[in-house]
Amino acid sequence: MSRQMVSHDADGLIYEFTPGLEPVYTAENGESLTVETIDSIGGAVQEDADIVDEVPEEVNGATGPIAVSGAEPGDVLKVEIEDVRVNEDRGRVLTIPDFGLLHESDEIEEPRTRVTPVEDDVIRFGDIEVPIQPCIGTIGVAPADKSYTTLVPHDHGGNLDTTDMTGGTTAYFPVFQEGGLLAMGDSKAAMADGEMCGTGAEIGTDIDITVTVLSNPAFELSRPVVETADAWKTIASAETLEAACQLANEDMTALLAKEHGVDETDAHLFSSLVGGLEISQVVDPLVTVRNAVPKEYLSSPF
Amino acid sequence: MSRQMVSHDADGLIYEFTPGLEPVYTAENGESLTVETIDSIGGAVQEDADIVDEVPEEVNGATGPIAVSGAEPGDVLKVEIEDVRVNEDRGRVLTIPDFGLLHESDEIEEPRTRVTPVEDDVIRFGDIEVPIQPCIGTIGVAPADKSYTTLVPHDHGGNLDTTDMTGGTTAYFPVFQEGGLLAMGDSKAAMADGEMCGTGAEIGTDIDITVTVLSNPAFELSRPVVETADAWKTIASAETLEAACQLANEDMTALLAKEHGVDETDAHLFSSLVGGLEISQVVDPLVTVRNAVPKEYLSSPF
Repeated sequence: MSRQMVSHDADGLIYEFTPGLEPVYTAENGESLTVETIDSIGGAVQEDADIVDEVPEEVNGATGPIAVSGAEPGDVLKVEIEDVRVNEDRGRVLTIPDFGLLHESDEIEEPRTRVTPVEDDVIRFGDIEVPIQPCIGTIGVAPADKSYTTLVPHDHGGNLDTTDMTGGTTAYFPVFQEGGLLAMGDSKAAMADGEMCGTGAEIGTDIDITVTVLSNPAFELSRPVVETADAWKTIASAETLEAACQLANEDMTALLAKEHGVDETDAHLFSSLVGGLEISQVVDPLVTVRNAVPKEYLSSPF
Repeated sequence: MSRQMVSHDADGLIYEFTPGLEPVYTAENGESLTVETIDSIGGAVQEDADIVDEVPEEVNGATGPIAVSGAEPGDVLKVEIEDVRVNEDRGRVLTIPDFGLLHESDEIEEPRTRVTPVEDDVIRFGDIEVPIQPCIGTIGVAPADKSYTTLVPHDHGGNLDTTDMTGGTTAYFPVFQEGGLLAMGDSKAAMADGEMCGTGAEIGTDIDITVTVLSNPAFELSRPVVETADAWKTIASAETLEAACQLANEDMTALLAKEHGVDETDAHLFSSLVGGLEISQVVDPLVTVRNAVPKEYLSSPF
């Protein structure tokens, strides 16, 4: 069976994750498909002269939603991210007024755009070559009861801006609505943890995924989790980094307690010894952190 | 020449970094020495039954201060950390009331102590073995004009609780006072980034260092920097993680601007593409983050 391509063309693009999303495609449980995404600014920036005066009302257009047959509320949607390939000849990194970690600094000019041309496996920032390490900025499912624009990360995923959402990792999302209703976009050719200026090198991508429903999972998932080659990471978004750290550590403490048959206090103590807290992004309306624990100490909770 | 041992015995232990510190030893510029440190709770916790009801008034005793000949305000003190060896048979990880990331959680019992016995190259947390990866929790120099207890991190260093302060890395501190006046302690046998419960596996260590004065440095240092095998990292402490991220990114932006001959805006944009923000600790009176950039993109600023 050839892979289905789900494209942003023909209505397959959302700017809001809502509880009532309608699927543009329904995948079989276990199906492999390719998702074609556009850059976060929707092609509006092609040259350094194309500056962005304010965060657009519609940003981070996400391709989908994709329903997965059999996914029911309470299940977990497993998304194996097999490959993320850039599909255009340039990325773009930019400052936008009143956006970004240093937007109150007099030293930082806003708006400014730097186009980063793609040359083989690198992007170029001026004279500097940076290897392409694509990641998916916005990826999530239909939320439980509130709606979130694609600029906002929350328990459904959304604008997580997490470098681990890349080829070779597996993301797990709570299923809140029938079918799960997965959408993704806002990829970067390269991004620092933190996404300090407010963007990475924003670019369109083709994303190969396999979607699987985990029914009646052994662990009730409240928020996204990502599995990398060597670690499990809880992911949490909140109004402050401190609050996000608390959520991510609470989630990790619960996972460690289950794994090792200890109470939450011992799990919390142990969590202070290995892996640790990581920053995803510090620039979106809610900020996002991860709590990583190496796989030596944590197996699949599902 | 045999290495000088600077021990916590005989008055060589401080609980406050002050501008007027008096050295217990004066090292030659370029001298290699060994610093013997005690655990952060000063030996008061040896068994699980030894609980800590409140953060002690004197905590994180730091061995020193060590003056380095020729260090003058405006210089940089280079501290090559050659090795950190645990020097006792147990560490200890603990919760303390009103301390730690989850201290408001009903699920977390405070106080609780878990002693982590040392067995060859591992510590044991219950049945779980964790490889010893020692780091120095508190390391710093005499501050410019204010005093800071050894519980507080700031621009002089202090309680940075940064896992990169370990064997094989090099720390750089601004010199604020004649001689620099270096002190260190509060080591951990293992610690997660974040130090979520408020401690790592607290333990005494013998630390091999070489101290060198960089006079008239090519880059004016405001806060500590650490050089690892593959990255340069700025380190900043502030009341919130957001404010610490801003400082760490401003410092990194300045380093990148100098390195690549670009303005601060381009440096900030570039900083959003590689490396990124990392969490040191989220539990001390000020919290600490790093901004890492791989050495491919940043050479020594000094």
